[in-house]
Amino acid sequence: MTKPIAIQGIKGSFHHEVAQLYFNDKADVIECMSFDGTVDSLLKGNTDFVVMALENSIAGSIIPNYALIDNHNLTMVGEYYLDIQHNLLALKGETVESIKEVHSHPMALLQCKVFFKDYPHVKLVEAKDTADVAKQISEEKIKGIAAIASKKAAHLYGLDVLAESVQTIKHNETRFVIVKRENYEVERKGINKASLKFELDHKRGSLATILNVMSDCKLNLTKIQSLPKIDTPWKYAFFVDVTFEDYKYYEKASSIMQLMAENFKVLGEYKNARL
Amino acid sequence: MTKPIAIQGIKGSFHHEVAQLYFNDKADVIECMSFDGTVDSLLKGNTDFVVMALENSIAGSIIPNYALIDNHNLTMVGEYYLDIQHNLLALKGETVESIKEVHSHPMALLQCKVFFKDYPHVKLVEAKDTADVAKQISEEKIKGIAAIASKKAAHLYGLDVLAESVQTIKHNETRFVIVKRENYEVERKGINKASLKFELDHKRGSLATILNVMSDCKLNLTKIQSLPKIDTPWKYAFFVDVTFEDYKYYEKASSIMQLMAENFKVLGEYKNARL
Repeated sequence: MTKPIAIQGIKGSFHHEVAQLYFNDKADVIECMSFDGTVDSLLKGNTDFVVMALENSIAGSIIPNYALIDNHNLTMVGEYYLDIQHNLLALKGETVESIKEVHSHPMALLQCKVFFKDYPHVKLVEAKDTADVAKQISEEKIKGIAAIASKKAAHLYGLDVLAESVQTIKHNETRFVIVKRENYEVERKGINKASLKFELDHKRGSLATILNVMSDCKLNLTKIQSLPKIDTPWKYAFFVDVTFEDYKYYEKASSIMQLMAENFKVLGEYKNARL
Repeated sequence: MTKPIAIQGIKGSFHHEVAQLYFNDKADVIECMSFDGTVDSLLKGNTDFVVMALENSIAGSIIPNYALIDNHNLTMVGEYYLDIQHNLLALKGETVESIKEVHSHPMALLQCKVFFKDYPHVKLVEAKDTADVAKQISEEKIKGIAAIASKKAAHLYGLDVLAESVQTIKHNETRFVIVKRENYEVERKGINKASLKFELDHKRGSLATILNVMSDCKLNLTKIQSLPKIDTPWKYAFFVDVTFEDYKYYEKASSIMQLMAENFKVLGEYKNARL
């Protein structure tokens, strides 16, 4: 692999962390300012891989990212689960008491609100990106302002960790997927998980019938999500993840589902990261 | 009904619009700055009803709101679907060309990004709330700044609509629910929809079995969403919406599901707003 990997955000972000954990520590990255930007990069051939958050245990699925993968016919080729830990970072020598403002992404501020109740003197200010604030504090030597970001960002930008794991809900596991273009050839060795999409009419029992096929073919369901099709009343799209021990059984189930459901599509086949 | 209705946001917000459409035009509201705030208001007895967005066609389910309802044992007693339309609002006499900045909630700015590509002179600035910006522009007579908000907000704060439906995806339907405290007595007349929650082990076919019961009892599935239970590996919670014609069949299905699934819970029984 020679091309860098496209990530949403900058170095020190959680996407950067996943890129390094999934590929290797020295993996080079293209910093993109949006998820659309990562996909542009992939379609233009600037990268072969995108790392993309897809769901987390607090907010659920990131539906717009499912739409990006689906609409551009991209393929998921891997997944990674990361436990997101927020830390309070500032210049060396600062303490929580010397901090006047904390700048971070609205979602990060929201997730850490309870921690700051004990520090009413600290003003919470919304910013675009978590790691970007850490970078700015470091480069411009900004005193009295702290960032909420990963320990990786602290290390990368030479900041002190004033407080660890400041988020309210201690487990915030986020599932990232590694995405390629559709022409990607799947190597079947080690594959034991697949992400599928299909459509069904709002007819009694239609989903139960599909799930029975999956069960008969020894597939385990690890995720299911329905989304109504806006422009087609009473029609639903289902996004389903399944795990399996034998690829042959999965192949059999797929071929039956293809006949039974409409617009059946494999979004990706890859190795289960949760074993 | 004498107590006002708790909404997230201020008058002129989409929650306010739903409160008036669901109850009546003169419904008085308690403006809350967060969803947690609306629930506090309910638990303290300041209100009998909360209007709460629960899912939308672009971003999917608002999982934290499901958690609020579930954790506080609240009951959904109604639902309302609203097609969210964003409009560009400013003081009378302004034009899109005279606008220098647009202030709005990050999600609203994101949803309208494509529109502003034609107006590169307009700077997009993040703000806390959509309707609140409209209110400020009106009260402080701020020139050169526009808000992205509803037509209701334009009417309420006496602003001009410079451009209609400026969001990129034209259909953005949001489902709101009307929530009460658990001691609420359900009147069964007209009830033909229910929101259920249950847990299952990660065992092959366990969900298919439950869906078969639902199908046998003539329930139609309109929504399904799995969420892994963070602290219990391999255990999943399912949030399911069903519609039915006969309450007796639904009752039968519930009593069977109660025996088959763990922690079976009715989150609400109400009238389907999609008929």
